[in-house]
Amino acid sequence: MEVTLVREWKDGALRSFQDYLTGEEPLEIRVADRPLSVTMRTPGQDLELAAGFLFTEGLINRPEQILGLAYATGCRNTERGNIVQVELHPSALAGIERVRRNFYAASSCGICGKASIDAVRLRGIRVPNPDLRVSGEVLCSLPERLRTGQAIFGRTGGLHAAGLFTAGGKLQVQREDIGRHNAVDKLVGWAVLERRLPLADFVLLVSGRGGFEIIQKAATAGIPIVASVSAPSSLAVRLARELGMTLVGFLRGKRFVIYAGEERLLAAAVPAHAKRA
Amino acid sequence: MEVTLVREWKDGALRSFQDYLTGEEPLEIRVADRPLSVTMRTPGQDLELAAGFLFTEGLINRPEQILGLAYATGCRNTERGNIVQVELHPSALAGIERVRRNFYAASSCGICGKASIDAVRLRGIRVPNPDLRVSGEVLCSLPERLRTGQAIFGRTGGLHAAGLFTAGGKLQVQREDIGRHNAVDKLVGWAVLERRLPLADFVLLVSGRGGFEIIQKAATAGIPIVASVSAPSSLAVRLARELGMTLVGFLRGKRFVIYAGEERLLAAAVPAHAKRA
Repeated sequence: MEVTLVREWKDGALRSFQDYLTGEEPLEIRVADRPLSVTMRTPGQDLELAAGFLFTEGLINRPEQILGLAYATGCRNTERGNIVQVELHPSALAGIERVRRNFYAASSCGICGKASIDAVRLRGIRVPNPDLRVSGEVLCSLPERLRTGQAIFGRTGGLHAAGLFTAGGKLQVQREDIGRHNAVDKLVGWAVLERRLPLADFVLLVSGRGGFEIIQKAATAGIPIVASVSAPSSLAVRLARELGMTLVGFLRGKRFVIYAGEERLLAAAVPAHAKRA
Repeated sequence: MEVTLVREWKDGALRSFQDYLTGEEPLEIRVADRPLSVTMRTPGQDLELAAGFLFTEGLINRPEQILGLAYATGCRNTERGNIVQVELHPSALAGIERVRRNFYAASSCGICGKASIDAVRLRGIRVPNPDLRVSGEVLCSLPERLRTGQAIFGRTGGLHAAGLFTAGGKLQVQREDIGRHNAVDKLVGWAVLERRLPLADFVLLVSGRGGFEIIQKAATAGIPIVASVSAPSSLAVRLARELGMTLVGFLRGKRFVIYAGEERLLAAAVPAHAKRA
């Protein structure tokens, strides 16, 4: 986080004040001494981000394939802290090399929504925990709990948050980043490094939109229930339905919309018409 | 946009309704018959998206380098409309090949915020139009004008919008996408294909956060003023200041925060203390 002098315009009047800015710097993930990816991220939990990225993108499929993980040394001063060096087990290196040759096309057998979903299936992702249950009341309490835990957001308004909750609504771990995907990767990276995978007993709440890649990352980590305060995309809904996940959107106040997997919601479900009567 | 049956949970009561979902599908940009990138996007204006991506990422620097631009033919049925084929002038192909070999590291001379800014400078981006002026009152009117023009958002809540406005507040062109960067790329792509570059007389309003890459894309297109309804990042502010752009955030109601380039704001500026007296 940086502090800088800015000016406020309010109804024609100007005043100066010190503002907090969300940090943003590039992070290079380096495998076998060569760059694999560069992403813009909010500095912090970078080892988790690297581990989570490798895992949710299917470049590794077991935490044990990470043999070493550390900030690169011997860099120029300005670069310090922006390069994470990963040492991988030989079983993962073939996949990395395939990805290097053509990062974008690697995970897809064609270019369409169905192929994108098939690519996730091909990674061998199992149907997430069918026995997890959560009540609507607990779900509705999560956004406020995430906000309470979101220290930086309160100051800068510039961060996306991802939180992992128990079915009882207890916040297990929370991560923030200027990038929505990064917040989820940091959170999953925590689980990779703490050997907590699969996250079969948890609900994931994300502060932004629920797109395909968020669901894909959650599925990879074995998370059965994903909730978002905003709208999911068409492909996110299709993926959640095909994988048997629960997907909830527009989680605001005492209301939400169920896009997939209603069976995991402990419904004290009075049908709407009965209630009105 | 897709329609699907969903369930609403409201205070314990459940009801079914038809919901509109934001479309999301992968788009492959193919150059010289080989994939260059795959991005998840909301279908529509895909040729603009491809042209804008190539331009704002510095892979071409003149619209004339695009010799051909069309949906790929001969694909499987499911892929139709998800592959855009680009034919580039030989002067652009060397850069493309360099990028193919190492997409991520191509534009950076190091891994830090300063290097990221230098990389933008190295592309030869000129200081944007210093003579453009906009009033605070006009700026405050833009979010509502963008919302009015945002046809899909009203239905799904799932899209990011980017709008190009004249200094008088007239909406020139507007694009939407599930991806923030894509909305800006589509908008710049419009300008590339319409031969309207540089966009030196326009204000760009984006519906989401103002990160580094949004400012970089705007700068590439010559846009002098960028406004966002949310917070900018530290690196976005640094880039805007170094390039001499105007950057405004938290544009809500009758208020905004000026992070860079106040001189472009036609201030009927009564100092705050004078107003209070």
